[in-house]
Amino acid sequence: MKLGVCYYPEHWPESAWARDAREMRGLGLSFVRIGEFAWSRIEPARDRFAWDWLDRAIDTLANADLEIVLGTPTATPPRWLVAEKPEILAVDAQGRRRGFGSRRHYCFSSAAYRAEAVRIARILAERYGRHQAITSWQIDNEYGCHSTVLSYSAAASDAFRAWCAAKYGSVEALNAAWGNVFWSMDYAGFEEIDPPSGTVTEPNPAHVLDWRRFSSDQVIRFNQAQVEAIKGEVPEARVVHNVMGFFTDFDHRALASGLDGVAWDSYPLGFLDRFDFAEADKARWARTGHPDIAAYHHDLYRGLSDIPFGIMEQQPGPVNWAPHNPVPLPGMVRFWTLEALAHGASYVSYFRWRQCPFAQEQMHAGLRLSDDTPSPAWDEVAAVAREIAALPEASGDRADIALVFDYESEWVAETQPQGREFSHVGLAFAMYSTLRRLGFDVDIIGPKDPVRAYRLVVVPCLPILDAATLDRLTETEALVLFGPRSGSKTAEFRIPDTLAPGPLGTLMGFSVPRVESLRPGTTAQVGGPTVAGAFTIWREYPRVSTASVLAHVADGTPALLAARNLRYLAGWPDEGLLRSLLATLAREVGLVPADLPDGLRLRRRGGLHFAFNSGPEMVAAPVPAGARILVGGERLAAGEVAIWQQD
Amino acid sequence: MKLGVCYYPEHWPESAWARDAREMRGLGLSFVRIGEFAWSRIEPARDRFAWDWLDRAIDTLANADLEIVLGTPTATPPRWLVAEKPEILAVDAQGRRRGFGSRRHYCFSSAAYRAEAVRIARILAERYGRHQAITSWQIDNEYGCHSTVLSYSAAASDAFRAWCAAKYGSVEALNAAWGNVFWSMDYAGFEEIDPPSGTVTEPNPAHVLDWRRFSSDQVIRFNQAQVEAIKGEVPEARVVHNVMGFFTDFDHRALASGLDGVAWDSYPLGFLDRFDFAEADKARWARTGHPDIAAYHHDLYRGLSDIPFGIMEQQPGPVNWAPHNPVPLPGMVRFWTLEALAHGASYVSYFRWRQCPFAQEQMHAGLRLSDDTPSPAWDEVAAVAREIAALPEASGDRADIALVFDYESEWVAETQPQGREFSHVGLAFAMYSTLRRLGFDVDIIGPKDPVRAYRLVVVPCLPILDAATLDRLTETEALVLFGPRSGSKTAEFRIPDTLAPGPLGTLMGFSVPRVESLRPGTTAQVGGPTVAGAFTIWREYPRVSTASVLAHVADGTPALLAARNLRYLAGWPDEGLLRSLLATLAREVGLVPADLPDGLRLRRRGGLHFAFNSGPEMVAAPVPAGARILVGGERLAAGEVAIWQQD
Amino acid sequence: MKLGVCYYPEHWPESAWARDAREMRGLGLSFVRIGEFAWSRIEPARDRFAWDWLDRAIDTLANADLEIVLGTPTATPPRWLVAEKPEILAVDAQGRRRGFGSRRHYCFSSAAYRAEAVRIARILAERYGRHQAITSWQIDNEYGCHSTVLSYSAAASDAFRAWCAAKYGSVEALNAAWGNVFWSMDYAGFEEIDPPSGTVTEPNPAHVLDWRRFSSDQVIRFNQAQVEAIKGEVPEARVVHNVMGFFTDFDHRALASGLDGVAWDSYPLGFLDRFDFAEADKARWARTGHPDIAAYHHDLYRGLSDIPFGIMEQQPGPVNWAPHNPVPLPGMVRFWTLEALAHGASYVSYFRWRQCPFAQEQMHAGLRLSDDTPSPAWDEVAAVAREIAALPEASGDRADIALVFDYESEWVAETQPQGREFSHVGLAFAMYSTLRRLGFDVDIIGPKDPVRAYRLVVVPCLPILDAATLDRLTETEALVLFGPRSGSKTAEFRIPDTLAPGPLGTLMGFSVPRVESLRPGTTAQVGGPTVAGAFTIWREYPRVSTASVLAHVADGTPALLAARNLRYLAGWPDEGLLRSLLATLAREVGLVPADLPDGLRLRRRGGLHFAFNSGPEMVAAPVPAGARILVGGERLAAGEVAIWQQD
Repeated sequence: MKLGVCYYPEHWPESAWARDAREMRGLGLSFVRIGEFAWSRIEPARDRFAWDWLDRAIDTLANADLEIVLGTPTATPPRWLVAEKPEILAVDAQGRRRGFGSRRHYCFSSAAYRAEAVRIARILAERYGRHQAITSWQIDNEYGCHSTVLSYSAAASDAFRAWCAAKYGSVEALNAAWGNVFWSMDYAGFEEIDPPSGTVTEPNPAHVLDWRRFSSDQVIRFNQAQVEAIKGEVPEARVVHNVMGFFTDFDHRALASGLDGVAWDSYPLGFLDRFDFAEADKARWARTGHPDIAAYHHDLYRGLSDIPFGIMEQQPGPVNWAPHNPVPLPGMVRFWTLEALAHGASYVSYFRWRQCPFAQEQMHAGLRLSDDTPSPAWDEVAAVAREIAALPEASGDRADIALVFDYESEWVAETQPQGREFSHVGLAFAMYSTLRRLGFDVDIIGPKDPVRAYRLVVVPCLPILDAATLDRLTETEALVLFGPRSGSKTAEFRIPDTLAPGPLGTLMGFSVPRVESLRPGTTAQVGGPTVAGAFTIWREYPRVSTASVLAHVADGTPALLAARNLRYLAGWPDEGLLRSLLATLAREVGLVPADLPDGLRLRRRGGLHFAFNSGPEMVAAPVPAGARILVGGERLAAGEVAIWQQD
Repeated sequence: MKLGVCYYPEHWPESAWARDAREMRGLGLSFVRIGEFAWSRIEPARDRFAWDWLDRAIDTLANADLEIVLGTPTATPPRWLVAEKPEILAVDAQGRRRGFGSRRHYCFSSAAYRAEAVRIARILAERYGRHQAITSWQIDNEYGCHSTVLSYSAAASDAFRAWCAAKYGSVEALNAAWGNVFWSMDYAGFEEIDPPSGTVTEPNPAHVLDWRRFSSDQVIRFNQAQVEAIKGEVPEARVVHNVMGFFTDFDHRALASGLDGVAWDSYPLGFLDRFDFAEADKARWARTGHPDIAAYHHDLYRGLSDIPFGIMEQQPGPVNWAPHNPVPLPGMVRFWTLEALAHGASYVSYFRWRQCPFAQEQMHAGLRLSDDTPSPAWDEVAAVAREIAALPEASGDRADIALVFDYESEWVAETQPQGREFSHVGLAFAMYSTLRRLGFDVDIIGPKDPVRAYRLVVVPCLPILDAATLDRLTETEALVLFGPRSGSKTAEFRIPDTLAPGPLGTLMGFSVPRVESLRPGTTAQVGGPTVAGAFTIWREYPRVSTASVLAHVADGTPALLAARNLRYLAGWPDEGLLRSLLATLAREVGLVPADLPDGLRLRRRGGLHFAFNSGPEMVAAPVPAGARILVGGERLAAGEVAIWQQD
Repeated sequence: MKLGVCYYPEHWPESAWARDAREMRGLGLSFVRIGEFAWSRIEPARDRFAWDWLDRAIDTLANADLEIVLGTPTATPPRWLVAEKPEILAVDAQGRRRGFGSRRHYCFSSAAYRAEAVRIARILAERYGRHQAITSWQIDNEYGCHSTVLSYSAAASDAFRAWCAAKYGSVEALNAAWGNVFWSMDYAGFEEIDPPSGTVTEPNPAHVLDWRRFSSDQVIRFNQAQVEAIKGEVPEARVVHNVMGFFTDFDHRALASGLDGVAWDSYPLGFLDRFDFAEADKARWARTGHPDIAAYHHDLYRGLSDIPFGIMEQQPGPVNWAPHNPVPLPGMVRFWTLEALAHGASYVSYFRWRQCPFAQEQMHAGLRLSDDTPSPAWDEVAAVAREIAALPEASGDRADIALVFDYESEWVAETQPQGREFSHVGLAFAMYSTLRRLGFDVDIIGPKDPVRAYRLVVVPCLPILDAATLDRLTETEALVLFGPRSGSKTAEFRIPDTLAPGPLGTLMGFSVPRVESLRPGTTAQVGGPTVAGAFTIWREYPRVSTASVLAHVADGTPALLAARNLRYLAGWPDEGLLRSLLATLAREVGLVPADLPDGLRLRRRGGLHFAFNSGPEMVAAPVPAGARILVGGERLAAGEVAIWQQD
């Protein structure tokens, strides 16, 4: 696994570049990402290019034997471009045009901006595409960051109309598919369709879901245009994009399909504090991150595709953008680096080389302080670089268990939560976390990926589950567990003719005529021969024909259904129910669940075994007798890692 | 009492209509409401009418011997009309025009839209007004739903100016009435007056109150125009509108005065979860609704006028629009139906026949599931239809106790809460609920209604209490209790010259020179010979001349004042104070208060006695010896009902 | 100390004026403020003036031997002016123009409005400037009230560009100062710069800070224009402005430098309920105000300048504008008046003479009720007027302890909190309150004020601490305590080259390479030989070269640093840490800290000693043997005051 760093030569005097480059190498880094926000310095005015500094920066880095990831600067259209073409700006749901002065202010649907993005990408590829040191390209930066996927501009409205026309062919077909007869919402032509905003009460969910699909498609299209621009100049160029954590506004799987590699930006403490974790979790894991927060994303993004994945930005200390920005526990930068290795990353790049003393991110840590002395992360990176160099190469294996994560399912749940606390991502994360707590490696896959190689497939919630998808998911001897609301919608966002769960119900022999959302604090006890716990948040009332019932709610309602190798869980499980259920299923397929302390996680990669302790208590790593310990020891304090080989 | 159902033939294949109609009759239903959202299917383009399907739908239903309530579709102006006349759209308080894509997007002040509404109503009346099966008409649907009474369009601004000119005659009179000398708010002409929005700090409350009165008037005017359009074609037509729960943005009493019947849409679980009940109440009554939530509205809407009232939409299972949408306790659909009967409803119509598998309300239950199998409500409706058929006819009696509810009082309290927790509706509901918990029937009346027939009149809060209203309310031998803030404002939203409570104070011999709002958790203990409890939220410091003081705050301030047959409560009572006070007053007029379990409620109608248990504990209905039990028994589990006759 | 009252002759019939004036004198008042909202009655239409009533009102008051403070009515531009020049209206951050109908709707940057304000001020000065009774002028009213300092109008944008051009000279200099290379935010000309609003994520903090400085400057410029207009007519005029509590959107120190006196409007109960105090504090002090809430503002505003300060509006009972508006404890109006005296006020003016029965403030108490009978405050004012008259004159002394409060520091903290709970004002108030609880008098001074006369100087948080300021602050033999984040930024909002705390670190021998914000509930224990407690909210990790370490965090990190006479506290102290630290520092400089009950506060002025008890428990005032008690006694119940003389 390579180590690298994000670097901004334009932020520093040229006199510092060569020394910086030497010190990067000295620290054990082999690559550097540059350029992704530098448009105003590359092209200070329309068609006036300032190549000299960038030429020298690239040469300086290359001369130090660093590989370079060169970013296209399209996340930051410069002021002159905004002045020239204000129509490239995104528009928010309240109809206000986004302002210049930060980043990501462009609209994905703007053809004018897409042309500009292609132009600058092409020009960069033309100039640097054959430079030996440029080993890959990063397109733009963190699509969707700051909630920028959805734009309500005129360009977006027009593009949406065209997208609808292309999808449905006739407006009658659209009216029928969306059910526009309801509330007299019929359209007479595609030109009458607006984005679903500003309505008095909620718009048609079918309208919203198509809008979400369209908006995701616009991201993919924008990205693809740049990919093609670069490959048009340099066909063998390797092109990546760096995605973020817990972002679901576009289909990352579709994005990955057009790339040569997928990177993500790993900020475990920032994500914990900013996203929807319980307050107790935010406090408990404040300095380490939730024990599954990085692992979940590693597995998610590794599973997007067969292309390499890596970490383009690794948190090296406190960040500046969460509500609270604590200092990581000493050791965590090393810990996160080894965790990335364990989960199959090809590289880890720290963000950033040196803390910037000015502008928006001046409170964001780097490997060096703004006075150019080393930050606390420095020694950790030096140490982990040596450790990684000493480890044997380990290529990845497939896990025994797959968890199916689908972006469209998130859009469906957001469009129609039906209960305030229902979160598709929350349920997927809970299932992932429980599997990991049971000691298992997990592959996160898409609903169209092959599942035959797995022994257990967990589908947290897949509302749109048509017959073809169902066939793919069930062409396996693995046990397949479906979570609540799976199969509850057609692709047109309708209740299936045979009721939920649609073809899955037909296959398994039950239907779900009635569901309910539960207030916080309201639970329904669930029990069966091998499972025990409760439903919270969501509950279903299945009507069973031929399916077996493996567990019941206390009032007698079926809670867990079975047919063939399929299982269906008719509610949102609390921790106890989820753990007993997943442990039972694992045993059924011959896997041996562990009962790990809440901070301990295990991971296997190739012949290497890893143990990571995020919890404050000292824990014992399950190192078998005769194993060869390569890193750490059997007793792990908070933030410690053990790696061993065993037969 | 008739039973009916809401039906949307346009949502279903024509082949299903006849069977649906037969099954409605088979279930015990005798009427069906149709048409109220069907504009785009009735008139797909300007002046192009598609009558054939509606002709056949009406005939099919009529042929099954169903009476029809035909709705005018004006809650859903179609897309072509919005395109043709975008000025019909409402504008929100931030100045944004409401978008097409849901419903209720029109502005009540738009003369253009009023003309369109009159046109479509007239055309419908012309075509179907003589059809024998059409027994009544519903105008529009749920005025005010989704906060749509207040619109800030140009049309509304113009109409408001005209309304002010008509009311005040001269702008000098308006300046004087509003007190515009304060903060240099004087106007030189009516054309300078805007709606009270976008001001830097709060606008003049007199301005706001007139805006609220105006906005209410616009609803009434819009409704009346349609009523006249229909009666212009069919003078004998019976015209109703279906109002909602806890909606107070327009004067329902004024609306009812132009109708032949008033209907309301009863969603006990949705209202509980969505409106301002304590979290503990939301949890306790999640599956039954608060025991007074439907009864309160029955009594409120029955009391709007002498015209018949009924339930146009009765919740038949989980809904889709509250933050949480639980399944009702089994039996509640029957329970709510019998409760409506007990409170004098002429009909109950379930919403809706069959769950719609598409669009916004696909998660809203119906009597049948979307696959056309019966939903859990089906058997309950069948049972209650039989029970009702077997019951003797019972006509309504006047109750012994009247509670005065006034819409303008709510606007006053919203305009000037003076304490964050002060809620006029909250206080009225608390007083109603306490009276019901004491076992009493209650009529809810308006401040201009006669009160002579009552023994106790409770006025929770009537800030604008001019001499004429006071005379009407006190021309009685009944005890009359006034709650806090009664009489505290003139019609111009000023403090009365003699201070609060204005003429009431003169009559009773006290004034209220000082009031205060209390933080949650702050209370003032109140005690007297027959009452004990505390003030919360609101407290007054009366200055007494001749009134008697029946209870004091612990610091010696008068808390309960008396003169003649009048009582005045100088604060917001907690539960204990309210119960002891109302029980005392009841005894004083010869009524015998009960002490019912918190889930049990009683009701008398004609010779029938009803008991309803909403609580989870088994309770005993107070069936006297010798009574003839017609329905249920003496012991009531949760969701059970008893009906008996006694001498 | 003079007593006065705010009076609105335009609100009352002329027949009442003379009696009102007589009764003011009879009550012990010697001055009256009038006119500040009366524009629409002075100039009902462009250039049409109605002087007669104001002439008579002024004469009537003067004839009763009342001095008059005459307000310019520029807080309330009348409707005809808004109609004529709509561009004078402010625009909010969402781009919406503020509406007419309340007050403060103008934009400080509007040259058109500034001209109008100058015009009306000049005309008033011309007419009344020589009137003997007019002893001072109040410009406008409560700048910044209702969040009106920041306006995003076209006028403001233009003025901001000009301000930037004047400050930076070239756009290259601005780009360099702000660090616009970051995220390609470079500008090619000043005309490209917008206010920092509507950006996708946070704008550049340097951009925001300059915007805040600019916006503050606009207030000062607006005020100064009126001051000059008045002094142009009446050079010897004494001009004041009345500021509010906890308002920090403009630099009050800069404002005061252009005035002859500074007044503030003291609403202890309203401020407590409305601003960011803990819920427990809001409940405990609901009827008295937090024991430091008025004192803090007295000391803050007294310390703005050497000009006289007083209270222009003193809360006389419940107000109308807080979430909850309780009745003050009996005695508090007297208490607050004596407290103002103790803290050096030249006058106290009650707001208002008579409760207004109409418009926005009808629920705001006055000295008389709206029916012209005395309100509960009446007798308290009469009593305190007699008490003050009987007291010996007492001129102010300098305190031994100074606390440095700086408006720019607040803008820095708001621009970059880095932790959700970090509040610059909160920290300053906590330090002030702790010093007061220890029994000390405190002067609040600015960072450029001389400090030599103090024995202890407390700087809660002064991020921008350049070498010159540091020199001034450290040219003293006093102990100087700097709180966290002091010295952490340059004037350009950058991290200092030598890291935080910049030159202070160089001077003391340490730097702060790393900081963190802590979640509520997370603490770090701090201990040392003389201090004990914990850090919450904020924590730093100093790197020490030569500084001494006087206390450590439990993990060994330095917590309290010392060098020479300087101390630096590397975190946000909890109550215990703060108290032990400040007590220790006080003892070090020979001051003797007390340990007062939480409701008791002491104050010395001239030879007078004051004790004030805001707490519900009876407390003992520390009256020494032999002292001469002038007011009250040694035992103080809630709301009681003692005053004594001692040798």
